[in-house]
Amino acid sequence: MNQRIVILGAGKVGQALVNAMLGTGHALEWYNRSPRQEAMQLAAQYDIPYWSDLKTISKDADLYLLAVADKAIEPVAADLSTLLSSDRLVVHTSGATDAAVLAPYFARYGVFYPLQTFSEERTLNFRAIPICIEAAKEEDLGFLFELGGQISDQVQELSSAQRRWLHVAAVLVNNFVNQLYTEAYDLLDNQGIPFSLLLPLIRETSERLSPDQNPAHWQTGPAMRADTPTLEAHLALIKDDPSLQEVYRLLSQRIQFKKGHE
Amino acid sequence: MNQRIVILGAGKVGQALVNAMLGTGHALEWYNRSPRQEAMQLAAQYDIPYWSDLKTISKDADLYLLAVADKAIEPVAADLSTLLSSDRLVVHTSGATDAAVLAPYFARYGVFYPLQTFSEERTLNFRAIPICIEAAKEEDLGFLFELGGQISDQVQELSSAQRRWLHVAAVLVNNFVNQLYTEAYDLLDNQGIPFSLLLPLIRETSERLSPDQNPAHWQTGPAMRADTPTLEAHLALIKDDPSLQEVYRLLSQRIQFKKGHE
Repeated sequence: MNQRIVILGAGKVGQALVNAMLGTGHALEWYNRSPRQEAMQLAAQYDIPYWSDLKTISKDADLYLLAVADKAIEPVAADLSTLLSSDRLVVHTSGATDAAVLAPYFARYGVFYPLQTFSEERTLNFRAIPICIEAAKEEDLGFLFELGGQISDQVQELSSAQRRWLHVAAVLVNNFVNQLYTEAYDLLDNQGIPFSLLLPLIRETSERLSPDQNPAHWQTGPAMRADTPTLEAHLALIKDDPSLQEVYRLLSQRIQFKKGHE
Repeated sequence: MNQRIVILGAGKVGQALVNAMLGTGHALEWYNRSPRQEAMQLAAQYDIPYWSDLKTISKDADLYLLAVADKAIEPVAADLSTLLSSDRLVVHTSGATDAAVLAPYFARYGVFYPLQTFSEERTLNFRAIPICIEAAKEEDLGFLFELGGQISDQVQELSSAQRRWLHVAAVLVNNFVNQLYTEAYDLLDNQGIPFSLLLPLIRETSERLSPDQNPAHWQTGPAMRADTPTLEAHLALIKDDPSLQEVYRLLSQRIQFKKGHE
């Protein structure tokens, strides 16, 4: 059944959600505190009402989606609560924020969190992006599940506590992995070696993973083999960067520790 | 022009090289100290002579490829040197070993290093695997370039010093990245959260990279934003694992350090 959905926020996540929901048949409405060129164009193209004044949004929509920066969630919810009845369904889209920050303002609150890193340069297939949902009222879960399933192949109910763990894990596999890519790029760049040599290895390392297998299964290399001469040669090579040495030592220790506990 | 190539070693790298060279028209010969079932089947299927006694290999081949474990390179080269004239071209396939370990035994030595992680479970497209070459004699580079180009789309001349750096970088983006995947898997597993939720993020993080762009370009997350409350919440969450906390602290510092120097 078609619903009325107000999306608040026209940053990367807001834009991705609006794009993903264009084909669902729901009646969309869009709010952003400031006018944003690309969002307004998208809204105009698909006849989506776009507001810059919070007071003008519909007061009786079926869902309010807060796609705003983490620190704006509570202030925007507080503003919203002066306009809406407290039994409206209001969810945020943050991986790092407890659902309960909405509790002082609304009885029917929850989370609709698309787990991905969004950028304006990359067009992602939204169906591949998992949606993690949570609802304070059991009876709101069904609608969030259904909406999630309309735009994504993977919808998962998670508690706020579980979402916190998922967010730490996402930092490990996205921010920290990207940092290791950066370290590798810089090392090669300093030696005049093209980074393109590493790309097939980088991609194979991620592509070989599967949902039900611990990545430890694939571990190889000097730490795994306890190949001390190679470990020491590597540490000697990066001796001018003691903090990178420390990263090297720690991750090598963790590889050996996990190996000992498999 | 077709050449005679003896591949020594029937482990993962040796098998991958033989498979890749099947279509090149070169006359292959294969040696492994012990009989290996899958290698012998492959050899039989393609009429490749397969020897378990080093003395039986051809003494006048155009190239001897040492696809053996790092620590076996020098002993096998020493054994070979008792059989071959010292002007035979002998190369090893190791990322972590200087070409010069072959110098005491052969005048024409070098390296033919396919940069990838090989496993028996994954069939890789060898053309996507970069080959790094090195030759003591300038005049041998042409043949190694040509052979590399017959089986791979990317052939790069690197000195042994450069290859050492490449090998450290490969440990960062393969072993250490895989360790971060493992840490994430274990954190989620402990909380009953399916790892499948992270796979799209993991793949996007590697797929968005390009040869000429520093991965720092893509960095996001709490460390990049200097979002101290989130960093502290994450550290508190993993408080039972001080060494993982240390990994978290160090990599967050390095993200912030690099950001300051862009």
